[in-house]
Amino acid sequence: MTQFTHDTAPTRYAEGGGIRFAYRRLGIPGRPPLVFFQHFMGTLDDHDPALSDAFAIDREVILFNNAGVASSSGTVPGTIEAMARDAISFTDALGLTTIDVVAHSMGGLVAQEVALARPDLVRRLVLAGTGPRGGDGIGAVPAWVAELFTRKYERQEDMWLPILFAPTPTSQAAGRAYVERIVARADRDTPVSDQSIAAQRAALAAYGAAQDPGYAHLKGLRLPVLVVNGTGDIVVPTINSYILQQFLPSAELILYPDAGHGAHFQYPELFVRHARIFLDD
Amino acid sequence: MTQFTHDTAPTRYAEGGGIRFAYRRLGIPGRPPLVFFQHFMGTLDDHDPALSDAFAIDREVILFNNAGVASSSGTVPGTIEAMARDAISFTDALGLTTIDVVAHSMGGLVAQEVALARPDLVRRLVLAGTGPRGGDGIGAVPAWVAELFTRKYERQEDMWLPILFAPTPTSQAAGRAYVERIVARADRDTPVSDQSIAAQRAALAAYGAAQDPGYAHLKGLRLPVLVVNGTGDIVVPTINSYILQQFLPSAELILYPDAGHGAHFQYPELFVRHARIFLDD
Repeated sequence: MTQFTHDTAPTRYAEGGGIRFAYRRLGIPGRPPLVFFQHFMGTLDDHDPALSDAFAIDREVILFNNAGVASSSGTVPGTIEAMARDAISFTDALGLTTIDVVAHSMGGLVAQEVALARPDLVRRLVLAGTGPRGGDGIGAVPAWVAELFTRKYERQEDMWLPILFAPTPTSQAAGRAYVERIVARADRDTPVSDQSIAAQRAALAAYGAAQDPGYAHLKGLRLPVLVVNGTGDIVVPTINSYILQQFLPSAELILYPDAGHGAHFQYPELFVRHARIFLDD
Repeated sequence: MTQFTHDTAPTRYAEGGGIRFAYRRLGIPGRPPLVFFQHFMGTLDDHDPALSDAFAIDREVILFNNAGVASSSGTVPGTIEAMARDAISFTDALGLTTIDVVAHSMGGLVAQEVALARPDLVRRLVLAGTGPRGGDGIGAVPAWVAELFTRKYERQEDMWLPILFAPTPTSQAAGRAYVERIVARADRDTPVSDQSIAAQRAALAAYGAAQDPGYAHLKGLRLPVLVVNGTGDIVVPTINSYILQQFLPSAELILYPDAGHGAHFQYPELFVRHARIFLDD
């Protein structure tokens, strides 16, 4: 059997719930696969090869575009809960019955709703740069942060440098290494459409505006959760990671120094070591 | 050369600054030793053998009583800063020039002052269940928590169960395992005197009452720090661990679920894995 890497795994398609989902699959079958849930505006190509390839050493890794995103068919719905239903259509289409999840930012919100809707499906959940429903500033970023998502670059992937990394030389250098990793793959995914971005933005705003001061919503997430983030997340403020740890029934929190919304991309080796301790426990 | 364990390492004495410091030393010389800084009311016997013995596999571990504590001579001073000067007298007495530190609760306050006073001495610092100068509720515990420190037990070590562990069956079971570990050693340290306890309490109150809303004090701690705690620390509220991570120049934070002030005693294997990743990096 050919062992694919992040960069060589072909884009495949699975039909479910009326959607043709684009996905890539690599690694060694056996244990429950590790499914990555993507952030706002992200495609298959924004996942970090350093993470995929490290986890794929001893398990399957699955990357996918949710409904309406990039090379998947359909339209992006306007709520996180509907995105979760779409994601379940995808895992059902692959016949997955037990998965572990690494979910980033908006993907972390979707993954929480998947685990609430299908507690039998998700075994362990890693939440990076995300927060709870009704969290602090979720879907309501300051204007100067919103503007970062609209900038045009010669190499568009460079947009992630000020969004995902801290404004320090060390963090920006780690960011440039991340961008080099994500542009290395030859056959590229389709860009996300303006409709997709608008719907994702609306879903984020609605989820962040939900009223749940005691975070009772989180009490339904009985599974073990690892929450990670950087010191200064400008997209989903870092305090939301602390709130998740405090209010989830069983969550460990790891915050990394000198880092932002993409801390797990900044410290891929350290993050993989921490996540493997959590996932393999 | 005899390899001592936590339970077999003899109590030794070192003279420095007019004090005869009691200490125990185990493990393999070579790398900078790992020095443990003890909590309020703690003696040599309250350190966890599961931690000492795990770290001592490939380095030296040093446990000590600061001035005026239990089997050390002298009196406990009334400030954290003076305790730090005493601790430096101890490390100087042993001729130590570079150390790593695991410091718990009040010991974490002392260790911060040691690292500020002698940045050349401390290479890496692990802070468990502690906080910053002027932190939230430091040295000002609620009456019901203060009362826990005054209770008498048939086996006095059982006092730590409600103080260091969460009020859940799993955490209390881990707490009982910790107590079994710390009572296993045959030759016991001297109990702490009422004078020592009163002076420690006064030092904690003064340090907690210091005014430093922007935590500028922490900016002087340039070394890498690992901050750990449990979800619900009733002695040094958990938010102080978050504050340390946010305001220290280079700190990683790990919070453990279903745990309190003694989270590192509740998950000794996991804590040692995390601390070794940090210390060995």
